[in-house]
Amino acid sequence: MRALVFNGKLRFEMSYPDPSMEEGEALIRVLCVGICNTDLEIVKGYMSYSGIVGHEFVGVVEDCHDQRWIGKRVVGEINCGCGSCRICQNGIEKHCPERTVLGIVRRNGVCADYITLPVENLHMIPDSIADEEAVFVEPLAAAFRVVEQVPIASSHKVIVLGDGKLGLLVVQVMQMMRCDLTLIGKHESKLRIAQQQGIAAAFAEQYKGGKADVVVDCTGSPDGFESALGLTRPEGILILKSTFAQKANLNMSPIVVDEMTLIGSRCGPFGPAIDGLARGVIRVKPLVTRIMPFEMGVEAFGIASQRETLKVLLRVSS
Amino acid sequence: MRALVFNGKLRFEMSYPDPSMEEGEALIRVLCVGICNTDLEIVKGYMSYSGIVGHEFVGVVEDCHDQRWIGKRVVGEINCGCGSCRICQNGIEKHCPERTVLGIVRRNGVCADYITLPVENLHMIPDSIADEEAVFVEPLAAAFRVVEQVPIASSHKVIVLGDGKLGLLVVQVMQMMRCDLTLIGKHESKLRIAQQQGIAAAFAEQYKGGKADVVVDCTGSPDGFESALGLTRPEGILILKSTFAQKANLNMSPIVVDEMTLIGSRCGPFGPAIDGLARGVIRVKPLVTRIMPFEMGVEAFGIASQRETLKVLLRVSS
Repeated sequence: MRALVFNGKLRFEMSYPDPSMEEGEALIRVLCVGICNTDLEIVKGYMSYSGIVGHEFVGVVEDCHDQRWIGKRVVGEINCGCGSCRICQNGIEKHCPERTVLGIVRRNGVCADYITLPVENLHMIPDSIADEEAVFVEPLAAAFRVVEQVPIASSHKVIVLGDGKLGLLVVQVMQMMRCDLTLIGKHESKLRIAQQQGIAAAFAEQYKGGKADVVVDCTGSPDGFESALGLTRPEGILILKSTFAQKANLNMSPIVVDEMTLIGSRCGPFGPAIDGLARGVIRVKPLVTRIMPFEMGVEAFGIASQRETLKVLLRVSS
Repeated sequence: MRALVFNGKLRFEMSYPDPSMEEGEALIRVLCVGICNTDLEIVKGYMSYSGIVGHEFVGVVEDCHDQRWIGKRVVGEINCGCGSCRICQNGIEKHCPERTVLGIVRRNGVCADYITLPVENLHMIPDSIADEEAVFVEPLAAAFRVVEQVPIASSHKVIVLGDGKLGLLVVQVMQMMRCDLTLIGKHESKLRIAQQQGIAAAFAEQYKGGKADVVVDCTGSPDGFESALGLTRPEGILILKSTFAQKANLNMSPIVVDEMTLIGSRCGPFGPAIDGLARGVIRVKPLVTRIMPFEMGVEAFGIASQRETLKVLLRVSS
């Protein structure tokens, strides 16, 4: 099969071995994939990963021991726990120390003609959601994770820092909470997308609105993290969505002096994400910069890493 | 008056100007002071402070508009808010952006014959608490802050990392919560103090007890912070008690990947600290390495910064 493989270098391969379906898994033909910032970090060396890249996808189940799944259009949760440890027994497979993670930790990713995933990772996609929207379910679930960790009230002043793909999803989830909300970013075109959805948005250097009760750092950079600290009020909450490959030179003392709470936030619940897209409450089509044919995967990664780009999708099959 | 003054260099001065008492303040004759790690950081440049050093003290009120305080033995909270901003109105003066802090931010500290403090910062000390114990009220309050921020249940596995002065106080507060508790440190003599109080203690390199639900970092070093991250379970809580002067080169991604919660923790409630000492539940005398005459203040700072030292006290008057 065709696959986009990272092995120190990113290459499009025409005859990668087909995956073999294990017990409890489904074989899925990939329709469309999205390129995420974590993918871009991975091809810079993050997690020392090698194998097929990518973890955001929508596909069709081609084979499965449970006949009900066959022919269904699905998206999939990316963490596969061992199933037997105490953490998996408690239902948080995403933190299993033995887990594999699609395209991130010891499990081939989704930039391929076929993938396999455990059936319990799959979620069906209603017909009202297009492929180009369905690929956003995984990152949108990560955005919903924020409000699962920190209940947001309408009285909260909230800043989402970073106008990239994830920031533009988080800010829409926050908008659903009817809080006092501002997106702070650096790109006029990206800030405008939020403004067109009725969200207050400001350039970082022009923002004068004061510190917030809750700040969500979606910048993906150490500098962004330090800015986020500066925007969080004493005893406020800073939610960290960014992972970056490099070590960062940080001054931690404001966290102690201002008694901030920092919360790391990763994968989230697929249900609200699918529902938000199906109901049209969350709008992701404005975030798609380019849809490219699968064969142009290497070029697509290059375009995805450019400053003005938001989401780049690869059309794998139809 | 006599005073221990930092001005790029630490000096014992014989004729420093007496403080003048402002409205609402008390004039206090200092009996005894304790040297804290924050003081040691300050003479390395932390907070760019200059003035009289020190913030842990016990003294006697010599003058006050409210006669009830005169002659009373007192300790004092170290943060002085502006009293009028929204944060002060909400009762959290310690986070007032205009605050002064005893011996730390634009307010002369306690290593002096006399100090002044607002009356609302003062707490009376019962006769059953000796001067050498009373100086621990401020750092012990900081230890109690931890359980004010994170309710600890007996089912919690808790690690206190760092067997210094603060760690040995935090671990005693945690012991009151009857949780599954371990102190991890690097000094046999310090670990033994905890063990003699019935607390499990282990050398860092020998600890094999697994990750904890709650870790309290009392190491005061960037290396300690990274160890603390490694000891915190996924979705666990890491409480940061350490402030250090320098920037640290840190890998933040475990916080995100393991969805940890980091909580900065500073000053705490004086009531439980005074009560804990008065009831003898908290034992601080084993933490006193040396009691030195005030005139030897500069030498005392040198001794306080040595590896095997715990608390160094200065006897100012009697």
